Amino acid sequence: MRCTVVGAGAWGTALADLLATNGCDVRLWAFEHDVADAINERHENPRFLPDTRLAPTVRATSALGEALAESTLVVFAVPSAHLRRVAHAAAGWIEPAAILAVATKGIEQGTLALMTDVIEAEAADRPVVAISGPSFAVEVATRQPTAVVAASRDVVAAQAVQETLSSSTFRVYTHDDVIGVELGGSLKNVMAVATGIAEGVGLGFNSRAALITRGLAEMTRLGVALGGQAATFAGLAGLGDLVLTCTGALSRNRAVGLAIGRGATLEQALAGKETVAEGVETARSARELAQREGVEMPIVETVHRVLFENYPAHNSVISLMSRELRAEQDA
Amino acid sequence: MRCTVVGAGAWGTALADLLATNGCDVRLWAFEHDVADAINERHENPRFLPDTRLAPTVRATSALGEALAESTLVVFAVPSAHLRRVAHAAAGWIEPAAILAVATKGIEQGTLALMTDVIEAEAADRPVVAISGPSFAVEVATRQPTAVVAASRDVVAAQAVQETLSSSTFRVYTHDDVIGVELGGSLKNVMAVATGIAEGVGLGFNSRAALITRGLAEMTRLGVALGGQAATFAGLAGLGDLVLTCTGALSRNRAVGLAIGRGATLEQALAGKETVAEGVETARSARELAQREGVEMPIVETVHRVLFENYPAHNSVISLMSRELRAEQDA
Repeated sequence: MRCTVVGAGAWGTALADLLATNGCDVRLWAFEHDVADAINERHENPRFLPDTRLAPTVRATSALGEALAESTLVVFAVPSAHLRRVAHAAAGWIEPAAILAVATKGIEQGTLALMTDVIEAEAADRPVVAISGPSFAVEVATRQPTAVVAASRDVVAAQAVQETLSSSTFRVYTHDDVIGVELGGSLKNVMAVATGIAEGVGLGFNSRAALITRGLAEMTRLGVALGGQAATFAGLAGLGDLVLTCTGALSRNRAVGLAIGRGATLEQALAGKETVAEGVETARSARELAQREGVEMPIVETVHRVLFENYPAHNSVISLMSRELRAEQDA
Repeated sequence: MRCTVVGAGAWGTALADLLATNGCDVRLWAFEHDVADAINERHENPRFLPDTRLAPTVRATSALGEALAESTLVVFAVPSAHLRRVAHAAAGWIEPAAILAVATKGIEQGTLALMTDVIEAEAADRPVVAISGPSFAVEVATRQPTAVVAASRDVVAAQAVQETLSSSTFRVYTHDDVIGVELGGSLKNVMAVATGIAEGVGLGFNSRAALITRGLAEMTRLGVALGGQAATFAGLAGLGDLVLTCTGALSRNRAVGLAIGRGATLEQALAGKETVAEGVETARSARELAQREGVEMPIVETVHRVLFENYPAHNSVISLMSRELRAEQDA
């Protein structure tokens, strides 16, 4: 079967490699010509997924129409800030019967839409599946055992994505809670920034574990307010991805937090980086959602203050860690 | 007020130091004379909590009667295998009105009793409080911000422990789910062994995050079957402590798993160590509890097989990671 991955960042490239290894005829759309050329000529993506040899059958192109022709599964993996315009441009080229999967994590600025909402709006009347879970792209590319979820209101579409993406080292579980799965993957990036800030100001493992626990609680509160299921946040797309991003190899989001915790400004922390720190923008949109829904999110609030309101990192984190004593269930 | 800590391992020593810093008159019972001497003469515990200067007001003794006289709060912090005999020996010396707190984590071999059950049986008719949560002793001793829970069926006793132990860097939340809090603290040690084994056979961060997520799910299943609350496992004593032990500095339990994952026998992995790896014995008792309650615990089962039934670590972990595909909610 013909599959298309839209976006040749680390995650899109790893997914394309996975699909090709599973026997799909894969087209990978790359925004940058040099990335497409490197993939076609040398089977590597030195800019976004260095030191990884890709399946030689992955064909890259910078032409959306060429990438999408005859494709029955389209996986979107562009940064959240670009998803709407790329989906809009792609819509006319997508086959009417194609299943659309979304691997992008984030909440759209302004509209506060989830990524599947964006895709549904721009390429209507096709089943949409969210892919999320603890999955560093480089580990997926090197065949480290990984487990993710494919969530959709259309169970047949979720199962189709499960069957197409699964391999002996990449397990895909189906899920029906799209809202919970998407919010888990988005909000954990804010928690990763928070964890980085805490590390940067010198806090240890005990603090980090408490922060992760509190972080999952406030993610769950917002998710439930928006119609998600609490149990989803205890699963791979919630807890799993949160733990990965806050404790695994230094993620982009945690690195930004770390720099700020050590005294850098947001501009300094973001300067000169090739990849996107989704958590920075998600801190804005998550805070807006929390305010709209009347949900208390002290960690999101603290990250927002430190990133955008010039509150000092050290004092903000310490005051977050020493909120008034009470029963844990009420905290 | 006079407080006693029974057990001068890393955790007992850190708690004694914390209580003394909070202004309590602290007696610390040490099994080993040399530990008591070092604490009294040099205000340090080089054997169990090296490189940490203790409050000079901590008084250590190897005489239980001396340690317990006139004490209104007694904190037990001995290894789980010794708790019953130490509590039995101590019972006659404990003031009738004392509050008993239990910082030991584990499930008793044979009886499958929780640590608070052991204390209730051996020193009856006093309120019992379980202390648990993500708290590396060395970080508590160095005043890193830490948050734990104090759980009791007696809310006044839980609040008394909260007030006595809390400081600006050590936050204590009260809780009413003793079973959930105790099981969280015990079972996470088995998950830490599992995480170590996975690391030892070469698995990466994605696998670890999936394992932690699945681990919390099976801990919660057993906890609910035994009368605990699911929400407790999403809190500090469940998720928080699980994340700390599986991802923080190398814990004793994770180190044992790591050695076994790399090919050592259990005997080799345990040899020559001063501290106890509670997770090894808890793997036995947790498996017995799971079988008794009819709860599926594939990770506990796998750890048991690798530790005690000579199953090869690599194949066991890989087969655990590739269980049959299905919906996440059913997994």
